[in-house]
Amino acid sequence: MACNDVGGRGRTAVTPDWIAVDWGTSNLRVWAMGPDGILAQAMSDDGMGRLSPDRFEPALLALIAPWLGTGVKPVIACGMVGSRQGWHEAPYRAVPCAPLDRAGLVRVPVKDARVAVYIAPGLKQTRPADVMRGEETQIAGALALHPAFDGVMCLPGTHSKWAHISAGEVVSFQTYLTGEMFALLSEHSVLRHGMAGKGWDDAAFDTGLSDALSRPDRIGAQLFTLRAEGLIADLPSDQARARLSGLLIGVELAAAKPYWLGQPVTLIGAEALCRSYARALSAQGVTARILPATECTLAGLASLARTLETHP
Amino acid sequence: MACNDVGGRGRTAVTPDWIAVDWGTSNLRVWAMGPDGILAQAMSDDGMGRLSPDRFEPALLALIAPWLGTGVKPVIACGMVGSRQGWHEAPYRAVPCAPLDRAGLVRVPVKDARVAVYIAPGLKQTRPADVMRGEETQIAGALALHPAFDGVMCLPGTHSKWAHISAGEVVSFQTYLTGEMFALLSEHSVLRHGMAGKGWDDAAFDTGLSDALSRPDRIGAQLFTLRAEGLIADLPSDQARARLSGLLIGVELAAAKPYWLGQPVTLIGAEALCRSYARALSAQGVTARILPATECTLAGLASLARTLETHP
Repeated sequence: MACNDVGGRGRTAVTPDWIAVDWGTSNLRVWAMGPDGILAQAMSDDGMGRLSPDRFEPALLALIAPWLGTGVKPVIACGMVGSRQGWHEAPYRAVPCAPLDRAGLVRVPVKDARVAVYIAPGLKQTRPADVMRGEETQIAGALALHPAFDGVMCLPGTHSKWAHISAGEVVSFQTYLTGEMFALLSEHSVLRHGMAGKGWDDAAFDTGLSDALSRPDRIGAQLFTLRAEGLIADLPSDQARARLSGLLIGVELAAAKPYWLGQPVTLIGAEALCRSYARALSAQGVTARILPATECTLAGLASLARTLETHP
Repeated sequence: MACNDVGGRGRTAVTPDWIAVDWGTSNLRVWAMGPDGILAQAMSDDGMGRLSPDRFEPALLALIAPWLGTGVKPVIACGMVGSRQGWHEAPYRAVPCAPLDRAGLVRVPVKDARVAVYIAPGLKQTRPADVMRGEETQIAGALALHPAFDGVMCLPGTHSKWAHISAGEVVSFQTYLTGEMFALLSEHSVLRHGMAGKGWDDAAFDTGLSDALSRPDRIGAQLFTLRAEGLIADLPSDQARARLSGLLIGVELAAAKPYWLGQPVTLIGAEALCRSYARALSAQGVTARILPATECTLAGLASLARTLETHP
């Protein structure tokens, strides 16, 4: 399923300077970029996870063909598309390093002469072992938007990332399975029986958060309590879902304490999720600022596009 | 899929005194019981989870019909068959109480006059909220086999249970999602990519156990490390699986410390899993004895069968 949106431009031809691509496991999103920002955008569910190697170029062209002319258009992609199972491997760069770097860009061989495709590599950390793909572009974008930034960024999501940023470099980072655990437990575990719907309850979120932060070592026991309270104490499903979220974010915050203790935190991600993290951090006396994920992704890719213009 | 095994009896008719039934979410297992124990046994995958209410009696008869004669045969069942979504609800009994009790048995209305079907109820605990169904029968069986027992039992499994037993009663208990988390993470999360096969590595199990027990609050971070080491440090899949198991059992042991600290532990469950728990407990200086799960289930149901004989 693909969807195109050319904003208020109607049938006028779109002629971008370059094309930005965020290619994750589940989705492909593309933007036609002009001198003043977004000219048009499109997306499809041709995520990296469902494509064999020979299907990547056609999947990309299916979305961006209307924006191609006679010249060669730079296309800059980030995300899982650069993994070993993706289109073309872009080997991880090792921290400490700048989140993005022109020298790390990998040129992908293509059949269509109208595009020059580059993939931005992810980052790796040797000890403790960790990796990211896609988030480095958002971090670079946040730094492009706030060049003087120094401190802690948190990117909540399926795999939440915490990163120490100093002097324009990612110094260290740490990944948490929080989002994936929430999906697995709320949709596929025995807890799902008490979590129908998409309801929410802030007070229950706060309770879960506080339970997990005060006794993170008891998380194994705290989870089944949600099921038992559903069976014998009629725990409502919206409270159960929110408390599960609070428990899991609480366990993440307990482990990430060296990152946020006594520090302001910049959150990058989906708005509702970032608001939950901001609420959780605020309860610990921590100030959080939220940056929209897409804006950061585009600013990061734009920083690479500028280096291509100067060193093509 | 059903399978019948009448041992060395060949085509000889089996005439049990009563029939034992362990009816869980995924499987149905039945035993023809004589004065000296098991005469025959059978099983099918007609678990409670796949049956509508009207399908329970036919599923049972499909297995036990060969053992029925002219009289009325007592059939005693335990497990999820007694849940609200099962065949007939057997309401939880509240701890502290004996794990099984004749007065709690629920008689199920049936169409076939050759059987008198009873379901043993599970146990509930109000604070912290907790429930069990099936494990109470194994605990009762362990007590029947070791009448003087006083202390701590652990029943590892999909939902591990820890129980304080005193003077023949379950005083308190606590459930952990350990087994279900292992299945979800090793088969359905991003970690699955590094855990192909069924391999094992004791040293990696010990490492995971020690990591989790020393810093249980860091479990959220320790999990993704398995994935990252697979990507950038070639962590072998057997080590990854065993370390995940060690991490999850370690987090369980961290929370269950009030149960096992300075106490011998009686483990009831599948042999390989019990051996992992015994190894983990041994590393903490705790002696563990293993009792086979089926033997305990049958001893528990037999203790009820005896009360039916005396008070039919």
